[in-house]
This record gives sequence, structure tokens and C-alpha cells, in this order.
Amino acid sequence: MHLATFRGAAGETVGIVEGETVFALPELLPNAPRDMIGVISAGAPLLAKIGAALPNAKGVALSSVELLPPLPRPGKILCLGLNYALHAKEGGNPIPDYPSLFVRVQSSIVAPNAPVIRPKVSDKLDYECELTIVIGKTARNVPEDKALDYVFGYTIMNDVSVRDYQRKTTQWTAGKNFDGTGPLGPVIATADSLPPGASGLRIATRLNGETMQDSDTSDMIFSTARTVSLLSDIMTLEPGDVIATGTPSGVGYARKPPVWMKPGDVVEVEVEGIGILRNPIESA
Amino acid sequence: MHLATFRGAAGETVGIVEGETVFALPELLPNAPRDMIGVISAGAPLLAKIGAALPNAKGVALSSVELLPPLPRPGKILCLGLNYALHAKEGGNPIPDYPSLFVRVQSSIVAPNAPVIRPKVSDKLDYECELTIVIGKTARNVPEDKALDYVFGYTIMNDVSVRDYQRKTTQWTAGKNFDGTGPLGPVIATADSLPPGASGLRIATRLNGETMQDSDTSDMIFSTARTVSLLSDIMTLEPGDVIATGTPSGVGYARKPPVWMKPGDVVEVEVEGIGILRNPIESA
Repeated sequence: MHLATFRGAAGETVGIVEGETVFALPELLPNAPRDMIGVISAGAPLLAKIGAALPNAKGVALSSVELLPPLPRPGKILCLGLNYALHAKEGGNPIPDYPSLFVRVQSSIVAPNAPVIRPKVSDKLDYECELTIVIGKTARNVPEDKALDYVFGYTIMNDVSVRDYQRKTTQWTAGKNFDGTGPLGPVIATADSLPPGASGLRIATRLNGETMQDSDTSDMIFSTARTVSLLSDIMTLEPGDVIATGTPSGVGYARKPPVWMKPGDVVEVEVEGIGILRNPIESA
Repeated sequence: MHLATFRGAAGETVGIVEGETVFALPELLPNAPRDMIGVISAGAPLLAKIGAALPNAKGVALSSVELLPPLPRPGKILCLGLNYALHAKEGGNPIPDYPSLFVRVQSSIVAPNAPVIRPKVSDKLDYECELTIVIGKTARNVPEDKALDYVFGYTIMNDVSVRDYQRKTTQWTAGKNFDGTGPLGPVIATADSLPPGASGLRIATRLNGETMQDSDTSDMIFSTARTVSLLSDIMTLEPGDVIATGTPSGVGYARKPPVWMKPGDVVEVEVEGIGILRNPIESA
């Protein structure tokens, strides 16, 4: 099942996406939770009710609604770096034995189709397609072999990076938190709709239609299960927290000559079985 | 003026602290905002009304209430590293020309007097006293000479660090985000109660009564104004966002032999004019 958040007549609304149609959850099930974190917390029993109600439902064209990030206000936005061997290598980094972690703040998050903002202070704007885990249940000190039980589903982040700010110090955080640089969506694919751990999925970036990244999530150094387990040793993961799992090779800064995104460009990141997250670039 | 958040009869309550007495804001001004972010957003006009109402108010003993973090749910918890020259030097780092930034998640934040948790996976638990800026107004691309206009006040963070996790990769985030490692408080001192930029204040840590850090906020490499200005180039700062401004020298890991906090210890961090933030250490 694919879940989205969109701006409806009654404001922010959760919807179920099937092909080119979206079904507003409050019309399917009037007593369902009103936001995505509520839906995630309700879990499998609610998904079963939705599945039962769908065959008789009336939807609207997906193209007629304004999609929001599927989680407009994620509790935590955790991000891994250097989780694909070839990407680590293209940046001159060794293969890691522990994941590199940074955090995004909510003000960096952008809706599907909304503009990614090239800031005033830099033109070094780069794309990064990332499979993104959506936590389903409170998780703390979870062993790897149980970790997938805590995953609700998966979405996509374009972890757009301002590379000169990422490299101003040893800490990447500044370059990863500019306003309007974190497209998230277009939907959350529930875990049961994808292979275990979302492994073996094609993951790709296209800039103005040209393929720039093209890999497979089975190349992740730290799998979904291992990532959830390791992060749960550090902190309590909560329903609706997201974990972007790093990007494969092919980023702009490592190209010769480097490729930077500029106003007027359109960037698409895609993960097989989840969808395509498309955003235009605009200047601040 | 010193503002706190405490657990009152009606739940989470903002209070004004004078000496050993706390005055519940809803009793002073029944129509005042209910939480600290609301109070901060209301700004100077509300503070003036509070000041006028205080002389006739009845308070309760500060020792009789349970303090919460003054901002129980800050929007963003931004943290600088390496912002005191001697601390950079004790870690073997050069004097930086740009601040090192990382982010804390809300699940790491701890109330005054509540236990700091030594996690199951590490015994390398270290203290870091930090002057912490509280943003008062929405700020974006703010020049340094206007930046103090956007500061509501100051609090204290003990940026407790799990040092081996901080050093597992180049990114410090993992070691800075364990559950129960970010004491915040005890109060917010409004900007008008401190010198401009909170400069020239003594800042110190005591572990079981022994002084471990003892410095002055005028030794900060990036001042309050410069920090707010630089971060506002990256992201929109909002009322109630906090910025911990880094710690002076004297941390445990740089001592010979190293000093690690252990269950049963009591750690106090103090900034002159704000207060003392005291927490016991407990095991997970």
C-alpha cells in the first residue's frame, strides 16, 4: 500500500495512492487518525481496515491534489552518510565499519514537486537519492534480527547537499540543513509491499532527464535491519521517525567536471516500488 | 527575568523564578500563552506585563516543584563544537574559521535534576557546559550587527557526550544523541538580564563538587551575534530554537588519566547570571 499526505479541502489529509488515483482516508474511514504519525502508530489493524474499504471507495486524480511530504513533521530525521561502497570511494573515503550519522531539521524538508532552493550563499548544490526508512513502533536496543518488526515502510529523500558548506568543517550538518533542500516522498510504501528490508531495489537520480545515479539498494553497506538496530542502541526511535540510508555513487561533486544543480533544473530521484520524487530547482 | 517550565497542578506550566520562589504564569496572567514557545513569541510586551504583575503575586518554593527543561520541545536543537580556543587545542584541533555544527534530537534532552543516563553500550560519558542561545524571532540571513535583536535569552546545556560513539566516525552526531544526555535549564535568562551577547560570564562544571571546567564566555571564538548570523544563512531560525555554543577546556576525555562520569556521580554546570544545572548520573 502507498500512503501520501496531501492538502485537501479539510486541510492536511492522509491518502492512499493507487496508480494515478488518491483516496482520502477520512472519506474511507471517518474515525481514522488524522495525520500520518497517527496512521503509522495504528499500524497493521488500520491498514487491514483500509484495504477492506478501498474496493468501494471513490478517489480523485492524484494530479489534482497538492502532495505534502508524507510525514510533514517527522519527529526525527536521521541520515546516514557513506552507506554505498562506490560512493564512499568516489569521495576518497574508506569503507566504514560503523555508519556516519547526521541529523536534518524539519525546516530543510520539501514536499514532492515543490522547489528545492539554491541558497544565496552557495552555488554548490548537489543531489543524493536515498532509500528512507519510516519507523513504525517505539524501538530501543533492538537486535538486528528483530529490527524489521519496527519498520512501518519506506519513502525517498533527495538529500540535497550544499557541498562547500558540508566541507567547511569536519561536520557535514551545515551543508545538509539549508532551508528547502530535503525533498521527501512522494509516498510511504508499506513494508509488506516491498522485499524484506527494501533490499534489491533499483535506486536512481535523473537531472533534466539524464541518469546521474543508478544503483541497487542491495549495495547498502548497513542494511535496513542493521541500521535500525545500531541507531536504537543510541536513542529511542519513535513511530514516524525517518532514517535516510545514504546515497550511491554518481553525485555531482565527484564528476569531472563537477555538476551542480541550478535554477531551472528538474531533479528526479526514484526507488523501485516506491515512486519518483521530482523537484524543480529555484534560486532563493 | 528568569523563566522556567515546571510540572504544576494543571500540567506543564511556565513560571517566573525569583530567588527561591517560582510564580506560575497562568496565575499572574490568566490569558498568557501556555507554553514557553508561546511566551517567547509574545516577546517584550508580555514580559512587561509580567513585570507589572509580579509585585502583587504569590509564589511557591522553587524546591517544591518539578522543573522541566525550560523548552520541553525546542523546534531545533543546534550545537556548536570547538568554540573555545583551549578546548579545540586540548582535542588536537586547530582554531576554526567556521563553526562546527551538529544537531541534537529531542529524545536526548533531560530536565534539571533528572538523571543523565549512562548507556548500556559505553562507559565513556563526559560533561560539557555550554551557554545556550534561545531564539526569540524568526531569523533568516541576518547580519551580525542585527543578530542580537533575534535573541530572546539564554539557558545552559550540559552537552553530555558518549566519547567513543562520538569518534566512531568523522561525524560526532551519534555520541551527542544518546537518550538522556542533554540536560537543559534550569531557566531561561532574558537577554536584558545579561550583558550583550551573554559575553563575559563565568562558565564552569563541577563533578561531585570538584571544578572541572572554569572559563569565561568572552573566550568564545564565535560570539552569540556571529553564531546567530552564520546559522541564519543556512536555515530559518524560529522562536524557541536553541543553539548550544560549545564548551571550554577541561573536559574529561582530555584529562590524564581521563575522567568519565559514572552512576552515583552528580554533575553541575553553571553560567553566571543564569544558574546551576545539576544532574545525577544513573545507569541505563
